[in-house]
Amino acid sequence: MPEVPPHRLALRVYWEDTDAAGIVYYANYLRFAERGRTELLRALGIDQSKLRAQSGIAFAVRRCACDYLKPAMLDDALVVETAIAALGAATCDMRQRVLRGADLLAALDVTVVAVAANGRPARLPPAVRHALAAFAGHLSAAKEERR
Amino acid sequence: MPEVPPHRLALRVYWEDTDAAGIVYYANYLRFAERGRTELLRALGIDQSKLRAQSGIAFAVRRCACDYLKPAMLDDALVVETAIAALGAATCDMRQRVLRGADLLAALDVTVVAVAANGRPARLPPAVRHALAAFAGHLSAAKEERR
Amino acid sequence: MPEVPPHRLALRVYWEDTDAAGIVYYANYLRFAERGRTELLRALGIDQSKLRAQSGIAFAVRRCACDYLKPAMLDDALVVETAIAALGAATCDMRQRVLRGADLLAALDVTVVAVAANGRPARLPPAVRHALAAFAGHLSAAKEERR
Amino acid sequence: MPEVPPHRLALRVYWEDTDAAGIVYYANYLRFAERGRTELLRALGIDQSKLRAQSGIAFAVRRCACDYLKPAMLDDALVVETAIAALGAATCDMRQRVLRGADLLAALDVTVVAVAANGRPARLPPAVRHALAAFAGHLSAAKEERR
Repeated sequence: MPEVPPHRLALRVYWEDTDAAGIVYYANYLRFAERGRTELLRALGIDQSKLRAQSGIAFAVRRCACDYLKPAMLDDALVVETAIAALGAATCDMRQRVLRGADLLAALDVTVVAVAANGRPARLPPAVRHALAAFAGHLSAAKEERR
Repeated sequence: MPEVPPHRLALRVYWEDTDAAGIVYYANYLRFAERGRTELLRALGIDQSKLRAQSGIAFAVRRCACDYLKPAMLDDALVVETAIAALGAATCDMRQRVLRGADLLAALDVTVVAVAANGRPARLPPAVRHALAAFAGHLSAAKEERR
Repeated sequence: MPEVPPHRLALRVYWEDTDAAGIVYYANYLRFAERGRTELLRALGIDQSKLRAQSGIAFAVRRCACDYLKPAMLDDALVVETAIAALGAATCDMRQRVLRGADLLAALDVTVVAVAANGRPARLPPAVRHALAAFAGHLSAAKEERR
Repeated sequence: MPEVPPHRLALRVYWEDTDAAGIVYYANYLRFAERGRTELLRALGIDQSKLRAQSGIAFAVRRCACDYLKPAMLDDALVVETAIAALGAATCDMRQRVLRGADLLAALDVTVVAVAANGRPARLPPAVRHALAAFAGHLSAAKEERR
């Protein structure tokens, strides 16, 4: 994990998130994780709607792996932590964790890729790259840029 | 209800549809109903993607009322019935029912409106109107057209 | 609408809430509304999980009608307002509105019924009734109790 | 991949499955995959509701990794393929693929664990193990049993 503190998003478990086993349905952790990534981008001044309208660039998930460690339940107050593990030319690897207090419920590795309007991978726009690299902290934005 | 038989779509209840109360989450009946409406349109030869690409016309729900009579459970085999109650210039009123065998679980009244690319109501394209009126049966397509 | 101020819940529109028409999918307003009702109950000290564990009583939606006035979009900051319109022996009628700033996007009338573990309607527990009546304000809790 | 043919489930992409990028939302492939696993179990005569009621045993996902290769779109007719890669004492590794015709859209590796009512891992019931092993084909049920 990066040494800089991850972004943290608090959220609540509602009926819509649970299933008949009485716990949060497994696909819904990916919804929680996406909220965390979106709020990290927003906190970094990256407006996905504007980015897409102006440059045609959107973020797509290329790979997602999730370990389910303990189940979340109705009414739980959760926190989604999001950290940046690596930046590529067109990709960003994120590490995310879903916590209930000190309990780790789920851990996700997500690779996001910037895609152009034609659906093909595109270099991360410089402003986006700088913002992500600055957040990641131990990654030098200048050095990343040269890759 | 119209005297012509309604369109029928069979579907299954999966974990994703249920909630921690052990029954289908109330919003998910609207997902089931939308599948029924979409399959009715498809059966009538109306391709929503093509329609939108060619004419900019899409269907939006303007109003939806749902009575919940009995709960659906995991693994239930359900049927969604869709009938047309009325056709307006830009709107279509549908009556939908979600059944498990002979048991009526939910009854919906849905008003759908055709909207242009600018989001404003638009007259139903003639081909769409004819197809819907022909399905409704007791509604004369010609008469409907004159409205 | 009741003269007392409604409960207000702020929420954000995420990718998960939208559909290929670029707007919030119609069933998802019911998810938003349920979050609003749950947070109202929580604000009134009513813990649904505890209530169900202790008394077997849960709340089910018996009827829901939703008018869709303007579409919500990705990244919108919304507010869900929840007010109590009427209290019956086993039921509670709620009026809910989904707003984006001053814009009214959707208006819902929802009838919730208390159900026992056997699925049959049950009288609202006195503490729940008092809390709801007190919130509704113009409804006298004592008077409601006598119904 | 096992040499025996995988289980195949056909499904359709509806509005509910898509997002504002015009494609299927990434978490929804996990919903599709779960439908595929459930239908495989059903085809093998394993009734999850009955199993849980009778033995307290339920299946939980312990790990899920998904590669997103090409996006699915509204109205697409998809097939979910499910194969069994390995059987442990309490776990089952499944390989799943989401296809549109010959196009591979998503590939998932899913580890499912049997859990008892107390939430702890439990040995797969013999009937379940036999059914899964028989389906997997190249795995000898007898040999598996000895593990």
